[in-house]
Amino acid sequence: MRQSQLFPKTVKNAPRDAVALNHKLLVRAGYIDQLMAGSWTLLPLGWRVVQKINQIIREEMDAIGGQEMLMPLLHPKKIWDETGRWDSAAEIMYQMKDVGLAFTHEEIVLDLVRKNNLSYRDLPLAVYHFSIKFRNEARASGGIFRGREFLMKDLYSLHTAEKDLMDFYEKCKQAYLKIFQRVGLEAIVVEASGGVFTTNHTHEFQVVCDAGEDTIYYDRKTKTGINKEIVGENNKNLIEAKAVEVGNIFPFGTYYSEKMNVNFTDEDGQQKPVYFGSYGIGQTRLMGVVAEVFHDDAGIIWPESVAPYKYHLIGLNGKGDDVYKKLLEKGVEVLFDDRTDVSAGQKFADADLIGCPYRLVVSDKTGDKIELKKRSSQETELISIDVLR
Amino acid sequence: MRQSQLFPKTVKNAPRDAVALNHKLLVRAGYIDQLMAGSWTLLPLGWRVVQKINQIIREEMDAIGGQEMLMPLLHPKKIWDETGRWDSAAEIMYQMKDVGLAFTHEEIVLDLVRKNNLSYRDLPLAVYHFSIKFRNEARASGGIFRGREFLMKDLYSLHTAEKDLMDFYEKCKQAYLKIFQRVGLEAIVVEASGGVFTTNHTHEFQVVCDAGEDTIYYDRKTKTGINKEIVGENNKNLIEAKAVEVGNIFPFGTYYSEKMNVNFTDEDGQQKPVYFGSYGIGQTRLMGVVAEVFHDDAGIIWPESVAPYKYHLIGLNGKGDDVYKKLLEKGVEVLFDDRTDVSAGQKFADADLIGCPYRLVVSDKTGDKIELKKRSSQETELISIDVLR
Repeated sequence: MRQSQLFPKTVKNAPRDAVALNHKLLVRAGYIDQLMAGSWTLLPLGWRVVQKINQIIREEMDAIGGQEMLMPLLHPKKIWDETGRWDSAAEIMYQMKDVGLAFTHEEIVLDLVRKNNLSYRDLPLAVYHFSIKFRNEARASGGIFRGREFLMKDLYSLHTAEKDLMDFYEKCKQAYLKIFQRVGLEAIVVEASGGVFTTNHTHEFQVVCDAGEDTIYYDRKTKTGINKEIVGENNKNLIEAKAVEVGNIFPFGTYYSEKMNVNFTDEDGQQKPVYFGSYGIGQTRLMGVVAEVFHDDAGIIWPESVAPYKYHLIGLNGKGDDVYKKLLEKGVEVLFDDRTDVSAGQKFADADLIGCPYRLVVSDKTGDKIELKKRSSQETELISIDVLR
Repeated sequence: MRQSQLFPKTVKNAPRDAVALNHKLLVRAGYIDQLMAGSWTLLPLGWRVVQKINQIIREEMDAIGGQEMLMPLLHPKKIWDETGRWDSAAEIMYQMKDVGLAFTHEEIVLDLVRKNNLSYRDLPLAVYHFSIKFRNEARASGGIFRGREFLMKDLYSLHTAEKDLMDFYEKCKQAYLKIFQRVGLEAIVVEASGGVFTTNHTHEFQVVCDAGEDTIYYDRKTKTGINKEIVGENNKNLIEAKAVEVGNIFPFGTYYSEKMNVNFTDEDGQQKPVYFGSYGIGQTRLMGVVAEVFHDDAGIIWPESVAPYKYHLIGLNGKGDDVYKKLLEKGVEVLFDDRTDVSAGQKFADADLIGCPYRLVVSDKTGDKIELKKRSSQETELISIDVLR
């Protein structure tokens, strides 16, 4: 991508109302734009980051047998009435006369499944989608941490027996830890309350981060802990920290399927309620957490796995076009600062702000070599184009 | 993908309320499921088809300089009030107190752009997204042709002058024709009215199809025509046909940007309104049109470019596992009917219904060869695995 054409330009100052660091950094660097409180456009750079996060999630969900699909966002009231959540979740669900907006999909996926008369042979079954969620948040804030509208991957699993559900639940927990690791984050598995989802305890994945809204108590060695909301005080001398929730998993058992009459035919022809779990990760929030965790005074420092571009090529003295074209031919991901109306200093500042993992410079001084610098380091070296991939 | 695990199973009978052929075929074959009138889940097979359509669109939009991003679905009333469309489009827009649901994004993209103080150097600019659209359709019907919620790619372009807008408009028209051609469809460029978008005439892309809701008059040679809605009668002895709209493009000029004060700084420092166009394709509808156009009595016949899988491998007599694994290793797309509780006849019927372009059979009779049959042909041949790619 030629930076002269990239929309939008970086901006020097953060929005006046921005408090959260992710808000300031991601807006200034041109990753996101706020339409209204809690509602964001993912700009071209931000959308690239989210697509990379999506692809990591997709690979790990497919690896545990998930089937990707896409469920609707307008939900009929009468299905939500079956579980009582049209009323019990009314505070966070946008509701019109006979339809509400998706804040989660348990009822919808169970309605889909029960139409298909499952037999024990069809189970276990795991389906997931990448989709928008709407939540009528009074306290929409924290940059993209808490939105009225945000992206989520939610997976739903169905089983013939509790043991099978819990085996899968553990498998999914491990898949989630792998996802966060691939994104560059260390996640702590935390016991928490189930909110509007369940009266049982559930597991959250929390990343330690000053901007987090949760307080957790955790053990550094096992990377497990407990959310303050369910214990009140630090009962086991664990480390106390502010943290932000990046995922959560819910083993519902037969609670929802009994309310909605979602059964499968057992080996002996009997109808039995399916065991059910759900598993969510918020990708837009995840992008914000990565920006909060990986930055310095000059800007963001993306882990390579989720960077919008691996290389940021800076052309000075009108140079760089040949190198850019060669890198494209090699299939290398590169953002090329080809601007002619901007100073070298501004280009370097923008590269630091945008935060691609590697900066390349081509100028009168570099001859037939290229100057390479890691975003996270101060050292530069001269390299040949052949080593880039 | 192993068909024993694929959700859901095919069904013998179409839903009782299904009238449209795309509805019957796509539901029976397990591509889509109806949540309520005009609202569909894209099941794993259907989602694969839509993702292939998306990728074709993405490549052609990138080729004309489009930058992909993602805009929100909840829109503030106050922005829609600026153009008067909060009121004029109230019939089709889902509206709550101070927010409405996206039925298009002209106002939203213009609000985004004006915050960024564009100069003539930043133009032309073209941004697009793949996103959900909501329309409060009284006559939600025709299978997935007319939904209350559906997928759309919409691109928006901004220019310094009318000529530049119209040059891009023509470029986008050609890109659209290429997209429909790659999807396997012959589209006719039809002059039409602008609906709630503009009082000017616009261009629609129509595919001749008995299930279409539009009537067009067209010339077979030039593949251009006119929508009956703007002429009333066949004025030029053109062919009259039922057709379905698969895309439309709108050259708005400065109509919206003047209402919303969306300006750019000209070379001499003057503020001038941007020239603006928008360009839409509905992908879920497109999947339905392909199913309507390409089918026989036994089921769908997907063009290879948008088929959920290129090959449908049928294993008989417990065979096929080795071939399946080898194809996966080669990176070949294959749906493997590994079911052991289903007759050969049922497997063949399902393959015809699902409609992958090539059927492969491995059985006691095929020895170390594989039987290959095109979905669109009756002839079979024995081939070696090496020729498959």
